[in-house]
Amino acid sequence: MRAMEELQALLGPQRVLSAEAERRLYASDETPRACTPEAVVFPRTHEEVAAIVQWANRHRVPLVPRAAGSGNVGGALPVPGCVVVGFECMDQVLEFAPQDRYIVVQPGVITEEIDRIARTAGLMYAPDPGSGAYCRIGGNLAMNAAGPRCVKYGATREHVLALRAVAGDGRELRTGARTSKYATGYDLTRLLVGSEGTLALITEATLRLIPAPERVAHLRACYADNAAACAACARVMQQPVVPAALEFMDRRSIEAIRAYGGAAGLPPGTAAVLLVAADGPYDDVPRQVERLAAALGGEGLIELQSGFSAAEIERLWTARRALSHAVKRIAPLKINEDVVVPVSRLAELVAAIDRLAEVHRIPLVAFGHAGNGNLHVNLMVHADDADEMARAHACRRALIETVLRLGGTLSGEHGIGSEKRAFVRLELEPDTLALMRALKQVFDPNGILNPGKKLPD
Amino acid sequence: MRAMEELQALLGPQRVLSAEAERRLYASDETPRACTPEAVVFPRTHEEVAAIVQWANRHRVPLVPRAAGSGNVGGALPVPGCVVVGFECMDQVLEFAPQDRYIVVQPGVITEEIDRIARTAGLMYAPDPGSGAYCRIGGNLAMNAAGPRCVKYGATREHVLALRAVAGDGRELRTGARTSKYATGYDLTRLLVGSEGTLALITEATLRLIPAPERVAHLRACYADNAAACAACARVMQQPVVPAALEFMDRRSIEAIRAYGGAAGLPPGTAAVLLVAADGPYDDVPRQVERLAAALGGEGLIELQSGFSAAEIERLWTARRALSHAVKRIAPLKINEDVVVPVSRLAELVAAIDRLAEVHRIPLVAFGHAGNGNLHVNLMVHADDADEMARAHACRRALIETVLRLGGTLSGEHGIGSEKRAFVRLELEPDTLALMRALKQVFDPNGILNPGKKLPD
Repeated sequence: MRAMEELQALLGPQRVLSAEAERRLYASDETPRACTPEAVVFPRTHEEVAAIVQWANRHRVPLVPRAAGSGNVGGALPVPGCVVVGFECMDQVLEFAPQDRYIVVQPGVITEEIDRIARTAGLMYAPDPGSGAYCRIGGNLAMNAAGPRCVKYGATREHVLALRAVAGDGRELRTGARTSKYATGYDLTRLLVGSEGTLALITEATLRLIPAPERVAHLRACYADNAAACAACARVMQQPVVPAALEFMDRRSIEAIRAYGGAAGLPPGTAAVLLVAADGPYDDVPRQVERLAAALGGEGLIELQSGFSAAEIERLWTARRALSHAVKRIAPLKINEDVVVPVSRLAELVAAIDRLAEVHRIPLVAFGHAGNGNLHVNLMVHADDADEMARAHACRRALIETVLRLGGTLSGEHGIGSEKRAFVRLELEPDTLALMRALKQVFDPNGILNPGKKLPD
Repeated sequence: MRAMEELQALLGPQRVLSAEAERRLYASDETPRACTPEAVVFPRTHEEVAAIVQWANRHRVPLVPRAAGSGNVGGALPVPGCVVVGFECMDQVLEFAPQDRYIVVQPGVITEEIDRIARTAGLMYAPDPGSGAYCRIGGNLAMNAAGPRCVKYGATREHVLALRAVAGDGRELRTGARTSKYATGYDLTRLLVGSEGTLALITEATLRLIPAPERVAHLRACYADNAAACAACARVMQQPVVPAALEFMDRRSIEAIRAYGGAAGLPPGTAAVLLVAADGPYDDVPRQVERLAAALGGEGLIELQSGFSAAEIERLWTARRALSHAVKRIAPLKINEDVVVPVSRLAELVAAIDRLAEVHRIPLVAFGHAGNGNLHVNLMVHADDADEMARAHACRRALIETVLRLGGTLSGEHGIGSEKRAFVRLELEPDTLALMRALKQVFDPNGILNPGKKLPD
């Protein structure tokens, strides 16, 4: 096959995987699907990425970009006949400029490594996805990843100043500037962030760093029911101290943790939990804790604890850390929704989730970044139970419809990938969607980049 | 003229200005140019804007959007044969949702009015352009306007959650969501912000509101020379307390203020000034002032004053408020550049501006948002002096080249409009520019919207 030989000539045989056993290792991401790519390539430089995209256009081979492969909506899932572009070898920090509070990285750098470097100069990289210890920034940029801190600091998009990228047609782009203000060209930077590798492959990102807080404290509030926790969440988000995290676990999450044996620290009667963080100047953090505690108090509060030391904070998060293991116990497959509603509607959403679980007879476990109104709603199912899967599908659709009726959106941080495309039409109006498709056509006229992702067919 | 009759049928005769004396009132903005439009129309609703754009496509009439007309790069400047779309009558606040910290406004709402409404619920709308008392939010969105507070809070783009708009081809768009997180579609919201009315006309904007600080304080630091002030600016931006404003006036600004008689409060020997703000929790503001004062200290500092009350703050800003009147005294025409460099390069930029003023024999007055590295460099000239105008043109070009060499960008907050298009090619690479043009083509295939703005020919 001439095309593969060209690819090997471009990158050398070491950085083109073509043996089936090797390719199969890149067949899946965190979704329960797999598709073995035709090859996996590992570029090291912007120029190599450009050459790969140009090669793909000549041979009409679809490219699927992949950073760590830790996404859970199929963003990095191979499609038939594709070549996976793995960014593992583009893991260099190109420039660290603490004096101007930015860092320039290649897409393969581990997300937490960026924060670690920033901390050496008293700075921080704010976005903190749960997979931060092993995910790579290229995937964060593709999906507009977020995490607990984003309730105070914003998601990935809010922390990108400039990009270097290769469009789907092979053209090389530079967007934005290294300065904190920019009003020159169209804002291609934010357009590329969250575009899930369907418009361009990002080869360099200039990320904004901010001063690291002097001190962090956490609070854990245990409630008698979901409604009390949701009401407290709304109160927290309506007073002036913006928390540095505001996480929620619903009744079924607590039940799962209890069944797993991880609820030792929770007082009896706990049916919902909020985990809240404060950060800032050393002397201001206790004041923040006081105000957050006042907002967390109220009907249904069973226990409120706070902690300032690393050990105390770890203890407050014990039950939360048990959650993902606990959830896996319930059913082998979880379909993970990532819906968002305005915070004032969270109580309605949580109540609706309870009803949906009953109506559709599907165990639903809901937890997540409640301060943003962003809940991960997990449908716990068995893939081999056709009736259950049909009920789960109806339940998902009803959930999405509820979220949209509450003024919300399909995805807060996971993105659309291949797994949520069927629902995009419920949210985006036909003309808006048509315009997005036309933009895709401008960047990628041959449809080379990550086909079958982000936008519905 | 059949087309004009259609327009009158659409809006009624009261909202279509066609008499020359009336049209002439909309011939210019804050640039020293004028071009009388064929008509001025005042839509009241999204639907009317859609009908106007569809009308313009049928008759191939260029539309120039105009909010307050207070921009200074020609963004709202009419082009020959155009119809001006004035947003004065779209001045309704459609929804104020303090519980979810957003407000939905039409484009004709006065910017400060949004902040005023937010304050009634303890919130604030952060972007604070100098023209805030009379500019309209539609213009802010078009240009990605900013102001002193943006060094801490970000520019307009960082405060927009969702938009409703009419694309150049007449298609109606809804972008983003009312939630604080969004990862569903492509980010058309941020793409439209700063696109200067060349892609779509914004008819509704959902703006993010944040808690208003409990207290504000200001500092004024007077320095013996530009270099000392620039060094202090860099020190401020390298310590952890991010100021809520960091404004700079250079030696020639101070000279102009003295000549105007507005320097009464400045100590002798002052040749450069920094104005700095702190805001936040009541008890934390004095601590911030202390830390900012420490960073402002150092070689060349002549005097440092701080103020917490409205009267004290007003006094510290007296010289700054005299500046625009003082500058007008020097020469009738000012060409206002709006360049940005990384903060650590500000001292180099200011030194280069001094040299350029001498080499080209053009009085240059530089001041602005130094915390963002954003300086307004005013070239003071006489439009009827051909030799001076030629020198000014060479000086502008040399300034832009210097800024780009220092890693900066053409415009921080004023945008490009018609006045800076000639320099865009110096900053944007040809392929990136070609892609921006292709995006323009997608939104506006007939080139109806604001032709001759933003992108170079």
